[in-house]
Amino acid sequence: MPRCVVLLSGGLDSATVLSIAKSLGFEPCALTVLYGQRHHAEIEAAKKVAAAAGVTDHRFVSVELNKIGGSALTDSIEVPKDRTEGTSEIPVTYVPARNTVFLSIALGFAEVLDCLDIFIGVNAVDYSGYPDCRPEFIQGFENLANLATKAGVEGAKFRIHAPLIEMTKTDIIRRGLSLGVDYSLTHSCYDPGENGRPCGHCDSCLIRQKAFESLNMSDPALAKSSRVH
Amino acid sequence: MPRCVVLLSGGLDSATVLSIAKSLGFEPCALTVLYGQRHHAEIEAAKKVAAAAGVTDHRFVSVELNKIGGSALTDSIEVPKDRTEGTSEIPVTYVPARNTVFLSIALGFAEVLDCLDIFIGVNAVDYSGYPDCRPEFIQGFENLANLATKAGVEGAKFRIHAPLIEMTKTDIIRRGLSLGVDYSLTHSCYDPGENGRPCGHCDSCLIRQKAFESLNMSDPALAKSSRVH
Repeated sequence: MPRCVVLLSGGLDSATVLSIAKSLGFEPCALTVLYGQRHHAEIEAAKKVAAAAGVTDHRFVSVELNKIGGSALTDSIEVPKDRTEGTSEIPVTYVPARNTVFLSIALGFAEVLDCLDIFIGVNAVDYSGYPDCRPEFIQGFENLANLATKAGVEGAKFRIHAPLIEMTKTDIIRRGLSLGVDYSLTHSCYDPGENGRPCGHCDSCLIRQKAFESLNMSDPALAKSSRVH
Repeated sequence: MPRCVVLLSGGLDSATVLSIAKSLGFEPCALTVLYGQRHHAEIEAAKKVAAAAGVTDHRFVSVELNKIGGSALTDSIEVPKDRTEGTSEIPVTYVPARNTVFLSIALGFAEVLDCLDIFIGVNAVDYSGYPDCRPEFIQGFENLANLATKAGVEGAKFRIHAPLIEMTKTDIIRRGLSLGVDYSLTHSCYDPGENGRPCGHCDSCLIRQKAFESLNMSDPALAKSSRVH
C-alpha cells in the first residue's frame, strides 16, 4: 500500500479525511501540528482517532505560532460565541498562514517518507471566510510542492488531497459514518472548558451541532462529554 | 518606513539580506526560526546581528522539524566534511521543506504585522543542490502567498525578496561590507564545536572561507573565534 501523510487535528473533519485516505488504499501516516493553541483537548482526540484507525506512524510537531500572534486560537483574543451565520468577515479564530504552515510541515514529512500524497481536511463551505480553505489555495500549494522538493524537481507530482473542500458539514458526517468513523473520539471546540468539555457556543461547536441535528442525531462527543462530567 | 519581515538565521547570507532590506528603506522585523538544529550558536549570532542592525522587533519561533527527521542538521546523520565541490547530488544537510516552512511562518508574521514584503537569504549559486533555493521556488511561494492570505484575496501583492539568489558568496560579502555588515557576528558552520566554534570543514565553512580568501581577507568570525578560544 502506498503511504500518505494525513494532517490530523483530532477534529471531525480530519478524522473523516483519515478514513477517506484509508478507503482509497493508502497507508496513512498521521501528522498532528501543535501550534500554540490554548488547549490540548484536540491533541488527546488526535491520539484516539489515530489509534482507532490503526495508524502506526503518528508524529506530533510543535510550531510556536503563538509567538507571532494574531488569532483568538493562539493569542489572548476572546473566542466569539453564538455568532450569527453568514458574515463575510474573516473571524478572529483565523490563524495567520496556518494551513500554509501545516502543509509545509506535511510536505517535509512526505519527503522524508518518500511519498507524494498529502491529505488535509479543509472545507470551503463552512469556513468560507478563511482564505487558506479555498480550492485555489490547495492548487497553489500543490504547484509549490513540485517546485520545492527533490522529487518535484525530478518530475514526480505531489497531490494535495482536500476531499472535504466542497462538502457541507452534514455531507462530511454522513460520509464519515459510512466509513465507520467514531465521532465520539473527535474534538472540534475552539474554547473548551475544564477537562476538554466543548463550550457549545463557538462557531465550531454551533456548525457541528447543527450538522448532527440535520441528520436527526445528537453529537456523540457531546453526549459522551455529558456522561463523563 | 514600511515594515518587512526578514528571515534571520544569524548566518552570513541573512545578515547581508537584513542590511539590504534596510538600504531599500524598510523597517525590518526579524524572524529567527529554530528548527531543531543540533546547535544554538546561530541563534546567538542572530541576536547579535539583529541588535547591531537596530532591529526592534525580533521574534524566535520554534518548529520541531527534528520530529520528521531526514537531515544531518536535525537528525543523527553525520555532517560531511571536506567535500569536493561540484557534486550535483542534494547533500544530507538539506532539511526537507525547510524554506517552505520558514516562508510560511514569515507569511503568518507578515499578516499579523500587516505588511507585504518578506526577505530571505537563499542563494541558488552556492546551494544549487537545494530545490528550495531556486528562483522558480521563490516565485511559486509568492504566488501561493497571494492565494493564502486575506490581503492577497483582497488584491494586495506579497513580494518575496531573495536579493542574493543569483549572487556568488564573494559578491554577497562584497555587498555586505559596502553596507557595513559586521561578519564577525555571523555564524555559518553546520557542525560547530564546543562554544560554537566553526569546524572549518563542512560545506558551509569551506564556501565561506573560500569567498573571504578571494577578497584577500580572513573570515572575521574565524579570527574572533581563534582569539576567544
